Amino acid sequence: MNTTIVKAYGATASTEDLKPLDIERRAVGADDVKIDITFCGVCHSDIHTVKNDWKGSTYPVVPGHEIIGRVSEIGSGVSNYKVGDLVGVGCLVDSCQTCSSCEQDLEQFCENGATFTYNSPDKHLEGKQTFGGYSNAVVVDEKFVLRIPENLDEAATAPLLCAGVTTWSPLSHWNVKKGDKVGIIGLGGLGHMGVKFASALGAHVVMITTSPEKGKDATRLGAHEVLVSKDAEDMKKHQGSFDFILNTIPVGHEMDPYLGLLKIDATMVLVGAVEPLKPFHGGSLIGGRKRVAGSLIGGIKETQEMLDFCGKHNITSDIELIDIQNINDAYERVIKNDVKYRFVIDMKSLK
Amino acid sequence: MNTTIVKAYGATASTEDLKPLDIERRAVGADDVKIDITFCGVCHSDIHTVKNDWKGSTYPVVPGHEIIGRVSEIGSGVSNYKVGDLVGVGCLVDSCQTCSSCEQDLEQFCENGATFTYNSPDKHLEGKQTFGGYSNAVVVDEKFVLRIPENLDEAATAPLLCAGVTTWSPLSHWNVKKGDKVGIIGLGGLGHMGVKFASALGAHVVMITTSPEKGKDATRLGAHEVLVSKDAEDMKKHQGSFDFILNTIPVGHEMDPYLGLLKIDATMVLVGAVEPLKPFHGGSLIGGRKRVAGSLIGGIKETQEMLDFCGKHNITSDIELIDIQNINDAYERVIKNDVKYRFVIDMKSLK
Repeated sequence: MNTTIVKAYGATASTEDLKPLDIERRAVGADDVKIDITFCGVCHSDIHTVKNDWKGSTYPVVPGHEIIGRVSEIGSGVSNYKVGDLVGVGCLVDSCQTCSSCEQDLEQFCENGATFTYNSPDKHLEGKQTFGGYSNAVVVDEKFVLRIPENLDEAATAPLLCAGVTTWSPLSHWNVKKGDKVGIIGLGGLGHMGVKFASALGAHVVMITTSPEKGKDATRLGAHEVLVSKDAEDMKKHQGSFDFILNTIPVGHEMDPYLGLLKIDATMVLVGAVEPLKPFHGGSLIGGRKRVAGSLIGGIKETQEMLDFCGKHNITSDIELIDIQNINDAYERVIKNDVKYRFVIDMKSLK
Repeated sequence: MNTTIVKAYGATASTEDLKPLDIERRAVGADDVKIDITFCGVCHSDIHTVKNDWKGSTYPVVPGHEIIGRVSEIGSGVSNYKVGDLVGVGCLVDSCQTCSSCEQDLEQFCENGATFTYNSPDKHLEGKQTFGGYSNAVVVDEKFVLRIPENLDEAATAPLLCAGVTTWSPLSHWNVKKGDKVGIIGLGGLGHMGVKFASALGAHVVMITTSPEKGKDATRLGAHEVLVSKDAEDMKKHQGSFDFILNTIPVGHEMDPYLGLLKIDATMVLVGAVEPLKPFHGGSLIGGRKRVAGSLIGGIKETQEMLDFCGKHNITSDIELIDIQNINDAYERVIKNDVKYRFVIDMKSLK
């Protein structure tokens, strides 16, 4: 099999720091686009995979699924991209394209197993794992390549590919619209995008946070109101008033107080807590025909719609740009929730 | 205030058996219908209220919110009912009629507080509690009176007023239709109605139960398949295949195995577990954009629609008819889940 060697940063064991590695990329096939990576966002999932928190990590792990770059080569069958185009790759690089989920543009739920951008068996490489975007280049089927609006800041666009679509997808799917009262719980990489999107969609956005300090920043990002969830009086005031709540809390947590905020028939969508939730009261749902749902990234069509919306409304992520050599320090800071709001690696630094 | 005394059965304390009581009913007002009660179903909520399990019970408690009877008197403004009509009363006897919930025919979620059929402050009686249907007669605003199809067995119709609408409402609201694969979890008063309704709606009905024995009975009631939830192989076979699940389990329980049965975008609705649920995994929802919702009885319009559907499809409850003098034994048996599937009191026995 034809492959080329490219530079990358990855971990060779769950207990190891990330370090320079040489990895194989497949040769550019007929449907493939080769991308010279310029920027890559740092997602908390990268850290979970490096540390094998979710089990199933195969080493070396080269993380990164918020990839921005320029097309440097295209296969003979590629019709949508040309060399030089500004493009992105998110969490998905392949899917079966034939199952009911794929047919509904929900490749993330591919019934035959989507191929994720890293740590996923790669059918093009005889089942070897995929490697992510902490690297100089990547080769991806054009169906999984996104077009990035040229008017946006390139580095700050990277987090749209995961944090962006993860928050956009539920807001869009549940049809958040002008005038809706929308709560965003948690102000991190996901939450800060949720505030920007909900606000741009015309909703009345309430930042729901434990920290008044974060509330201030949320207002700068577009929130119209701040609800400090520790303030019982304030929580009572907002009882039963929300049309939709986007819950970005990344760990198991008390759900009842937030469910109490929903209107009748309204939904709270979880996008962060991929772990056991604390017990909540059946009555919190029953007493108002309320709903709790989950949402996972988004399909390719939806990701492109989000990027086009961002281009139109000039929305990007708030980022801290780092060199790849500082990635291990950045991980420590992400774990401490000490970043506003997303690290992005300047891939020029990987030489 | 003008009242009349009627015979009833009720509890004077949480630790007491039910016994004969004399209670007051208000005089028939302009909008009121007086109903001579012929039958009244026995709901588990009756027992919870008698025993003060949910707190807030005010004694004496006269339970009963599955009321069937004949109109014996009407107020001057009553237009929809005449003396002799076969009618029913469910869990609701009043609401504000002006809030957003009432305007949407969701009186059960009245923002100013619905008046429930028993143990609810009664605005017509200067805030005294309402008394339920374990009684010879009741006076109810005609807006909360339901018309019972004359072709149905009168006694077996009583449970439709609570168990019926509680299961009908989510099946109808979530638009269960011909060809859908629908799971009903739990075969009791609620579950057995769920099976009958889902089957009559044309769905492919799967009884989900821990007991193969109950499965057999479910088939008699209209289920097309039985899934024994303790059988790991069988659970795996049905993974990701359900369009809708109606969960009637009345206590907190493991949710993850059931959520795994749902298709992408599908919903499981809780109607029984008005108590803390066991912790479930956020990933069970996130990994398929799945939903958990709750549903509480149904509004008056929906209850009438359900009754009309029952008339058309000849659907009633499977019941055991008892005299009121046996109510305390019946309660013991309900607690042991030893009834197929609902006790109904023959109110002639109350003299």
